[in-house]
Amino acid sequence: MIPFGSIVVYVTPAGKKRIKKLSPDEDYHTNEGVLTPESVSRSDFGSYVRTSLGTPILVREATLADKIMGIKRRAQIIYPKDIGWICVKLGAGPGRVIFEAGCGSGGLTLALSWYCGPTGRVVSHEEREEFVKLAKRNLEWANLGQNVTFYQGNIGDGFREKGADALFLDMREPWKFLDRALECVKPGATVGFLLPTVNQLAELTRELEKFPFGDLEIQEILLRDWKTEPDRLRPRDRMTAHTGFLVFCRQEEKLAEFDNFGSPDTRERKRFAAREQRLANGERDAD
Amino acid sequence: MIPFGSIVVYVTPAGKKRIKKLSPDEDYHTNEGVLTPESVSRSDFGSYVRTSLGTPILVREATLADKIMGIKRRAQIIYPKDIGWICVKLGAGPGRVIFEAGCGSGGLTLALSWYCGPTGRVVSHEEREEFVKLAKRNLEWANLGQNVTFYQGNIGDGFREKGADALFLDMREPWKFLDRALECVKPGATVGFLLPTVNQLAELTRELEKFPFGDLEIQEILLRDWKTEPDRLRPRDRMTAHTGFLVFCRQEEKLAEFDNFGSPDTRERKRFAAREQRLANGERDAD
Amino acid sequence: MIPFGSIVVYVTPAGKKRIKKLSPDEDYHTNEGVLTPESVSRSDFGSYVRTSLGTPILVREATLADKIMGIKRRAQIIYPKDIGWICVKLGAGPGRVIFEAGCGSGGLTLALSWYCGPTGRVVSHEEREEFVKLAKRNLEWANLGQNVTFYQGNIGDGFREKGADALFLDMREPWKFLDRALECVKPGATVGFLLPTVNQLAELTRELEKFPFGDLEIQEILLRDWKTEPDRLRPRDRMTAHTGFLVFCRQEEKLAEFDNFGSPDTRERKRFAAREQRLANGERDAD
Amino acid sequence: MIPFGSIVVYVTPAGKKRIKKLSPDEDYHTNEGVLTPESVSRSDFGSYVRTSLGTPILVREATLADKIMGIKRRAQIIYPKDIGWICVKLGAGPGRVIFEAGCGSGGLTLALSWYCGPTGRVVSHEEREEFVKLAKRNLEWANLGQNVTFYQGNIGDGFREKGADALFLDMREPWKFLDRALECVKPGATVGFLLPTVNQLAELTRELEKFPFGDLEIQEILLRDWKTEPDRLRPRDRMTAHTGFLVFCRQEEKLAEFDNFGSPDTRERKRFAAREQRLANGERDAD
Repeated sequence: MIPFGSIVVYVTPAGKKRIKKLSPDEDYHTNEGVLTPESVSRSDFGSYVRTSLGTPILVREATLADKIMGIKRRAQIIYPKDIGWICVKLGAGPGRVIFEAGCGSGGLTLALSWYCGPTGRVVSHEEREEFVKLAKRNLEWANLGQNVTFYQGNIGDGFREKGADALFLDMREPWKFLDRALECVKPGATVGFLLPTVNQLAELTRELEKFPFGDLEIQEILLRDWKTEPDRLRPRDRMTAHTGFLVFCRQEEKLAEFDNFGSPDTRERKRFAAREQRLANGERDAD
Repeated sequence: MIPFGSIVVYVTPAGKKRIKKLSPDEDYHTNEGVLTPESVSRSDFGSYVRTSLGTPILVREATLADKIMGIKRRAQIIYPKDIGWICVKLGAGPGRVIFEAGCGSGGLTLALSWYCGPTGRVVSHEEREEFVKLAKRNLEWANLGQNVTFYQGNIGDGFREKGADALFLDMREPWKFLDRALECVKPGATVGFLLPTVNQLAELTRELEKFPFGDLEIQEILLRDWKTEPDRLRPRDRMTAHTGFLVFCRQEEKLAEFDNFGSPDTRERKRFAAREQRLANGERDAD
Repeated sequence: MIPFGSIVVYVTPAGKKRIKKLSPDEDYHTNEGVLTPESVSRSDFGSYVRTSLGTPILVREATLADKIMGIKRRAQIIYPKDIGWICVKLGAGPGRVIFEAGCGSGGLTLALSWYCGPTGRVVSHEEREEFVKLAKRNLEWANLGQNVTFYQGNIGDGFREKGADALFLDMREPWKFLDRALECVKPGATVGFLLPTVNQLAELTRELEKFPFGDLEIQEILLRDWKTEPDRLRPRDRMTAHTGFLVFCRQEEKLAEFDNFGSPDTRERKRFAAREQRLANGERDAD
Repeated sequence: MIPFGSIVVYVTPAGKKRIKKLSPDEDYHTNEGVLTPESVSRSDFGSYVRTSLGTPILVREATLADKIMGIKRRAQIIYPKDIGWICVKLGAGPGRVIFEAGCGSGGLTLALSWYCGPTGRVVSHEEREEFVKLAKRNLEWANLGQNVTFYQGNIGDGFREKGADALFLDMREPWKFLDRALECVKPGATVGFLLPTVNQLAELTRELEKFPFGDLEIQEILLRDWKTEPDRLRPRDRMTAHTGFLVFCRQEEKLAEFDNFGSPDTRERKRFAAREQRLANGERDAD
């Protein structure tokens, strides 16, 4: 039994996939014939439903990743591989209150809404009305969003709420809003960013130094897919090589007496200098 | 205010980090002096507490990733980068019922417990008693685990419950338990695996072909860290290059009339053959 | 002045590239008009030649990488990124004598011929006549090959010469020919292999243990391309994720008294065991 | 027979490696006893020589990669994985004339000297006297360098020769010398750069636009090592994640009538815009 309202991934014998919400009022017309909502609903996930032409169509439950990739988009979406990591870093989860600015098509919003659940909240700020509408529509499509509050407007005027457990900024120039970010988060909260280019990384990290943020991390998440034939296992020929740089930091007091409290880069610089010195003085050494 | 019971990461001026639960009865003795629980509790995350010797210690809230890395371990843990992705693929989240077999030190259990929340459940099977104990202790330490049921025993005798929304197997020879996996999951459920070596990948994928599983994926998640100095941005010199291969599939009927329903590998094989043919017939071409 | 016989890469305004040998007798017909050999020859590399229709065509000198990618192919070629590394590991260079078996379309042969030069030699064994022909034709096209000797036949019958400074095997089942490999190389010579799948890796490494080979290495070379706009620097969206695994070893005596002389894997196993022990005994530790 | 003067890698039973030139006048003192030059010379590469204490020491021929890693260093060296690719891109090889500026410890110089051979030349410019001395000493140690000319001085005053087939700049601020680079290379020549940080990439690419250079590429070469146990094949746990960004371009006329002749980035931008448009208009689509 597949309940009406479920998000379903249909797979044709040729491997073509389509994601759709199962509505009781709507037939699904494919190139291989028509599927009625009743026939789909009577089946189970992981089984086949025959079209009017007799072609079997595999019916899969849409996973979180499927839904993220399946929403209607107007902007670059954040990829599921990145979203999984962002949610771990922000500590998304039941009962948590996560803010975001720049909802785009709502992909991250969808995942945050899912993880934070009925006892948590997602507070999303977005300047452009069409994106708010799109994100809302996508959340509704995915049967999520009851715990999401949208505010349309420029966060240059400040966030409309305070007390975020964590904050994510997905916007072109997030470094312009660091003061506003500080105002809305709880002490010690994690603040994350997605930036496609290294030029933006330079701008952001430079500006972050002026504010009480610490524990700065810049990371890339890469997903490498493999072919699955048991006797010819190997990575696939091509992969997505870049989606964006993820930046995380935490609201943290700066201490005048320490330049760079506990920074691994400071320590690495020292180790590096020591090693160079050792090489400079040292004997030849193979490996 | 930091409530007693919180998991706290302490950072020294030299960058040394230690993770501890804040207990009202226990002083924290460091090389730089003693921190009293009262002084920590009176402070806020992201601020500094002075030891008895006057050294400032930065007090951070442990994130989900901190907790996963901070548990007491006896076995290889699953890394946070992998856990984030596993949770997306399994659809961990409020209200979901996720099974695992092989709890190890409880790192994934901890994350599943966190994401599934009070309305969801985690059902964990583990053969070795010492791991059950360790995982329980770690969950309790992390203020999690109320939604986790542990069963000690060999899943060769079957899972002790049925109806899993998704299942994760972290064991040396998961291919021996595919029949048992099938019994315990809902139709269409995602089943995931972690395997360190490609030899295991070959065994598992070969065995999976004999059972009603489809949508097979083999993936590696790589996390590349960058240095964070604004004027010298660059990836760090070294990175973790391998933690394990992640395998995901779904319970799915097999259809006699189709060899490999909708498999991208089938399609890729055809494209590849076509391209080779084209090159063989073709003109020289400088890409 | 571009001499006749040069390999030239032509680039159209739309960015379409084609590689061709500049012959005095042959016009080059493009969609944008005709280029006469005289007009090309009168120009210089890095400049533009106008077609009969007035379209400028940029004329580039084919680099070694261009030539490797530009040969006529019937089989998977070895990619330039891998070839560069293979040549470093084999010590290709003036005066060296490098053997290969399995010439395929001749891409590696071409590079070895280039690097070993008139004072060195390349000795290539290939079972299939059509590949020998193709490789010869490609070398001639690239103005190389004078230092290459081809032998058509199965190396199961032995290599036709002895005394290789290094050897490269690019064939489906190289583990069947390790005895033959041993016969043809000088003491201590490096032997390399290219294998697309991990199943082949398992076969090869298992078989190598039975023969006097040591210093075993398995490696992947990945090339990540970046976009080049100064204000939007970032890795390209997609990359080649896999071409093949490179295996290198050296002819080396085995010593009965040592299981695995100087193997880093042996040492790593010990370090790993020690660390596991330490963690098992140890305190909780946040990184 | 190992000729005196050979560069030898000695491996102890514990796996410790040391690289040394075999001199007839010098015993090799190890922790496991003394090796006499006669005993080494009487042996063959790939065999064992016993120390005065009876410990077997494995004797390997130093490969090109061993030599590059084995030179005495004062600065960051260029890694063999990068050198292999640089040599392919520059077209190093017998008879070629390659210029470099910034010789550092002479690692790339060594490889260029090897590949270009007696019929080619390497012309190396370096500002600091101690690096010229070091590079010369390293080349002599490696039995190379006869085809290398060193010029000590600042290339801001111009290169001391002209007519380079290709040029490589390994210096902190290469963008200051693009006019000088242009003066010394042949038409259409490839010019390469190594830069550790993305900030330098931005500077260089911005400046390159002002000069007649085209075919710009920014690349990273990554080498991933695998463990070699046949029954537990897997990538090693850690890898070198970054050594530097490689930039290549070619001397090329700019054409006023075309903004960005044949640039893949231009085309990609268009494709990207088209796809975004399609998504914006389009139906939901799972993958």
